[in-house]
Amino acid sequence: MKTKEFQSILKKKKIDFALFYNVDYDKADANMLYFSGYKGIGALVITRNRKFLIVPKMEIGRVKGIKRHVWDKNYRLFEFVKKKVKGKVIGIDKNVFTLNHYKELKKHFKNAKTADISKICGKLRTIKANKEIKIIRNACKITDSILKKCFSNFKMFRKETDVAAFLGNETKKLGCEMAFNPVVASGKNAAVPHHVPENIKLKNGFCVIDFGVKYKGYCSDETRTIYIGKPKEKEIRLYNFLLGIQKDAINNARIGKKCHDLHNKVNKDLGKYKKYFTHGLGHGIGIDIHELPNLTEKSKDILKRGMAFTIEPGIYFKNRLGIRIEDDILLVEKGIEILTKAKKELITI
Amino acid sequence: MKTKEFQSILKKKKIDFALFYNVDYDKADANMLYFSGYKGIGALVITRNRKFLIVPKMEIGRVKGIKRHVWDKNYRLFEFVKKKVKGKVIGIDKNVFTLNHYKELKKHFKNAKTADISKICGKLRTIKANKEIKIIRNACKITDSILKKCFSNFKMFRKETDVAAFLGNETKKLGCEMAFNPVVASGKNAAVPHHVPENIKLKNGFCVIDFGVKYKGYCSDETRTIYIGKPKEKEIRLYNFLLGIQKDAINNARIGKKCHDLHNKVNKDLGKYKKYFTHGLGHGIGIDIHELPNLTEKSKDILKRGMAFTIEPGIYFKNRLGIRIEDDILLVEKGIEILTKAKKELITI
Repeated sequence: MKTKEFQSILKKKKIDFALFYNVDYDKADANMLYFSGYKGIGALVITRNRKFLIVPKMEIGRVKGIKRHVWDKNYRLFEFVKKKVKGKVIGIDKNVFTLNHYKELKKHFKNAKTADISKICGKLRTIKANKEIKIIRNACKITDSILKKCFSNFKMFRKETDVAAFLGNETKKLGCEMAFNPVVASGKNAAVPHHVPENIKLKNGFCVIDFGVKYKGYCSDETRTIYIGKPKEKEIRLYNFLLGIQKDAINNARIGKKCHDLHNKVNKDLGKYKKYFTHGLGHGIGIDIHELPNLTEKSKDILKRGMAFTIEPGIYFKNRLGIRIEDDILLVEKGIEILTKAKKELITI
Repeated sequence: MKTKEFQSILKKKKIDFALFYNVDYDKADANMLYFSGYKGIGALVITRNRKFLIVPKMEIGRVKGIKRHVWDKNYRLFEFVKKKVKGKVIGIDKNVFTLNHYKELKKHFKNAKTADISKICGKLRTIKANKEIKIIRNACKITDSILKKCFSNFKMFRKETDVAAFLGNETKKLGCEMAFNPVVASGKNAAVPHHVPENIKLKNGFCVIDFGVKYKGYCSDETRTIYIGKPKEKEIRLYNFLLGIQKDAINNARIGKKCHDLHNKVNKDLGKYKKYFTHGLGHGIGIDIHELPNLTEKSKDILKRGMAFTIEPGIYFKNRLGIRIEDDILLVEKGIEILTKAKKELITI
């Protein structure tokens, strides 16, 4: 994605080449995946006019559509990189480059300087290309369909982990991965925003289900809160109050708006409940489940066309209950496109 | 785990406190999890006589059995850490500490020096405590049972992703997570050691299934290769040849042995097939799926009592076939304990 744009930035910033690496076969380096489609072990080099991977022999079957060299294991990774590229200024993502890898890099590129390209990469990735938008749109569609199926089958689940297993199973059956370990939080567990599903009976009350898939490398992220049992009047009121705020927050998102203004508007709307809203309003989605922009109190990000992000206000009463409603939206020229479309009126089971 | 031992090392090395951090709620920092049981966002501080977490308000529900401070979001994370602890030498794991977090740390601890504690943590974690051994033993038992169920249900699977979905579903139903995205590689896909299951019909021939669970925070890692269809005589011979080598390698593992000797013995045993064995013989397992020791050609690690690791030789013929057989073993005083016990004779489907 956007290699040419990136290369012209390298030129402008007087960076000779950018270097990305990944030492873990099961976790991709997001930038490497973005620029090369490759998610295995190895290194990616992008010069002002070339782009190639260096991969161990065991990983060559995973490389597609990009030039690659086989990493000769007689050399350390960056030592081998040096055989393939020269330069005085190396662009590295200092948000992910570790201190020991940096030390190793300096060992082999003694006189080179490094430039932090984390912001460059972050900014490129935050504005989605049409190809990415199509993928994310599909990821959201898949998520909707799985959530719908989950709710219509909900009576057969006995435990929080049953729900998580169902979500995982449906995801895998469609050839997707899960974007993250889903949250299935019933009863007072719902007050813990990142609750890990437990092997315990589903409790009555609100049940927060936060779930997303990874489809063709891109994440969706959707939360619905349903009710197990019969909700009290005031619980329904609380849910609808939050739902109204969530809808307003979505409608408030427009090109040019400041992210912190969106968050703070929700804080204001929450009134006396503000203190029970303990996280950010939203975050960008893409290859990573958390990308730019940040929709938080102190964010300096500004909304731009092509950004895809979540809107997810929540209210959490410790040891009592929790409600969160989250959609993924895309900023388009004329306003917004809501990507996730699962029913938002309170579902009772 | 082993906090006191760690604290006495800090004292010996003249380190005032160790600092771990995690900014991603879905991925734990392994050291933080090891020393605190906590896997959310925040920081862990261990001084020579204290240990405490700093966590955002939204994560307090996930903290158990350890002192914690709520992170006041008016401060940056390390800025807030500074309010709670002083010191001139800070121990950090430079294998995971990123350059930008380091810069941020230095901003708030201007005159402090840092010491790399990656090796200290790695060494502590590589020798499993009894409590950890019990958990890993159970993780392996669960993996065996799921694999067994998978093979006896195998006829109902049509696609590689069906198998992966089944493994995931069984894992989640038991309240576990998957230790990694499983490999389900049929036909020529089996020649790609880290093949990602595809939404395509299972192909005849060898089918490599590499799967592990995360149980109470600890990983198992087991591979079996089965055969779909009717294997040829020479395919059965090849399988049994590799199986013999794998069993020998397990029997060869003993306290005091050099890891590279184990790997090189397998290379030697493979004879003309050596060049088709494209990865390391094994790796430690624990909180991370890949830990010390490394059983590779150039490893300097030596086997010690209490180490848990994989033995996983493989043979891969590009675009044709692949076979890998992997067990988890534990080094005990009297020799070895094989933790994974799924049937190893060639299963045909």
